[in-house]
Amino acid sequence: MGPTEEHWIRLCEIALRIIRSNLDRSRVKTLKIFSDLAVDDDIRRLLEDGVAPHQVIRPAKPAASVLAKSEPDPALTEADIAFGQPDAAAVLVSPRLRWIHLTSAGYTRFDTPGFRAAAGERGLAVTNSSMVYAEPCAQHVLAFMLAHSRRLPTGLGTRCGNGSAAWLQLRGTSRLLRGQKVVLLGFGSIARHLVEMLRPFGMRIVATRRKPRGDEGIEILTGERLAAGLAEADHVVNLLPDNPDSAHFVSAERLAAMKPGAVFYNIGRGTTVDQAALAAALRSGHLDAAWLDVTDPEPLPPGHPLLGLPNCFITPHTAGGHGNESETLVRHFLDNFRRFVDGAPFLDQVM
Amino acid sequence: MGPTEEHWIRLCEIALRIIRSNLDRSRVKTLKIFSDLAVDDDIRRLLEDGVAPHQVIRPAKPAASVLAKSEPDPALTEADIAFGQPDAAAVLVSPRLRWIHLTSAGYTRFDTPGFRAAAGERGLAVTNSSMVYAEPCAQHVLAFMLAHSRRLPTGLGTRCGNGSAAWLQLRGTSRLLRGQKVVLLGFGSIARHLVEMLRPFGMRIVATRRKPRGDEGIEILTGERLAAGLAEADHVVNLLPDNPDSAHFVSAERLAAMKPGAVFYNIGRGTTVDQAALAAALRSGHLDAAWLDVTDPEPLPPGHPLLGLPNCFITPHTAGGHGNESETLVRHFLDNFRRFVDGAPFLDQVM
Repeated sequence: MGPTEEHWIRLCEIALRIIRSNLDRSRVKTLKIFSDLAVDDDIRRLLEDGVAPHQVIRPAKPAASVLAKSEPDPALTEADIAFGQPDAAAVLVSPRLRWIHLTSAGYTRFDTPGFRAAAGERGLAVTNSSMVYAEPCAQHVLAFMLAHSRRLPTGLGTRCGNGSAAWLQLRGTSRLLRGQKVVLLGFGSIARHLVEMLRPFGMRIVATRRKPRGDEGIEILTGERLAAGLAEADHVVNLLPDNPDSAHFVSAERLAAMKPGAVFYNIGRGTTVDQAALAAALRSGHLDAAWLDVTDPEPLPPGHPLLGLPNCFITPHTAGGHGNESETLVRHFLDNFRRFVDGAPFLDQVM
Repeated sequence: MGPTEEHWIRLCEIALRIIRSNLDRSRVKTLKIFSDLAVDDDIRRLLEDGVAPHQVIRPAKPAASVLAKSEPDPALTEADIAFGQPDAAAVLVSPRLRWIHLTSAGYTRFDTPGFRAAAGERGLAVTNSSMVYAEPCAQHVLAFMLAHSRRLPTGLGTRCGNGSAAWLQLRGTSRLLRGQKVVLLGFGSIARHLVEMLRPFGMRIVATRRKPRGDEGIEILTGERLAAGLAEADHVVNLLPDNPDSAHFVSAERLAAMKPGAVFYNIGRGTTVDQAALAAALRSGHLDAAWLDVTDPEPLPPGHPLLGLPNCFITPHTAGGHGNESETLVRHFLDNFRRFVDGAPFLDQVM
């Protein structure tokens, strides 16, 4: 074979490679991404440009909020990916779904043995938006701790004069956080942010964790030592998600084990607390106060025992909120979307 | 001279030394420490034991608070040291006074050219309790910043449901501190504590300081660059003490120079702010909100323009308060008292 033939063969090989590669490229499936997240035009464009050439498909009626599940939607049945708050039952009957990315940190509706088994069987991945909410949630906890220690609810509501009895009482019941002890119930992204923010305050911080890994950087209390930890803590911060193990974890017994005068915070889920027992502990003065961002149900119905207590402070599940929340949710999804396309490990994978 | 005589001479010399030393000791003046700080028995004992064998003398009527000046007291005229809130004029006519230690961080009544000159002439030292109040004050500022960014005043007052318009508004107007810019007006003990506490939040922090020393660890804005700094700041924290230079430092002009939507905090003194201009900036919405622990006067009289504004939040000069305040004040004084006796440099010397 002479140099000319060899030359032509090489050229043909190259041409073939180019043709095949173009063929492959045209064969790459256009992924359909179901998204029920209600966003404005800028954020919608951010999402659509971010996934192009893949396609965003939308339900007829967008979900009202990141915390409300949307109704089953026929669009879901043709989607490869769902981004938002899809219905758990609808997910299981949508045969093409390979990955769902939830716009919440909580994933209670999916955290059942039945769903886990079905997801495992068909290789369905589930990720959540934990990283998006961890920092604002940690700042919300610290806002609660400082508002309490600086007695803001009382202080903002009085014009008592310097030296008056009310003023001396207000200054005298204000507290420095330095030297006080905190128990964190649960150790995930929020706890890590919170520990970092509490570092300059010189507090003693311990935590509970279902499966301690040794990378926590603080002492982890195992089951039998929790009661002793609660008995010493000035602040008990509940960060537990809602799952079958966590239901009423903060029980009457654990509330009774807390140090008299302790302050209880809940930024996890309302179902993890025996609210009747909490109301009793607040009414008796066993606990100094409770600061709750979550309750069961939300909002609490009029006449609920936790309402109207002067030492129970409730925000309406706003701890994770922040100005550009839709944008950070979409950017977090897009980060995971690139990982999906590249076959790289997900962020915030929960199943 | 034989060994016996030498022996007796040595013995006499030793005896003489002992007698002289005892004589000297009996000649050490018992210092009289005037204290008008109202304390309970435990803290009174702490003070008395701490200065023994020197003597604590008390006015007929103790001062009502650490912020109220007491009336001139005859006991002051025989005191060497005053610990509390002595009257400035009475101090100047008390010939034996060599040192006054104030139970406040502020020392406005003493910070006049006349008092400074008189104190300088007779070698009267003045120390304050700045270190005692710096940490609680810094925690009070951060409580304000986080209460605002997490929208606690609104959040604690609503039971709006997940997904409602009020709820979306509340979450959407909540803010993360990360990336936001802070200008501190004044750089002393409180600022140092605050900078330390803000470190994990990832904010950009700059400050003003009368005499920059290069040891601040953050950028110091000099006079002409302050307006530009104010125009960029999301948070302006006023820590200025009350003195002739600081009167209405936060003027209508400087308020106008602030970024639209900025939040103003005052933990210094009320006199440092043009309150009419502040009220106007809050009413027009130029500033998002003001959080004040100090006003001029305190409390504000009914009908004052700053009262009743939905975006003006006021605590009644309680930022420095903390549970065991009398104890920390006395311990701080005792620390300085030992320095006085030993001739060592004072802590928190202001004159």
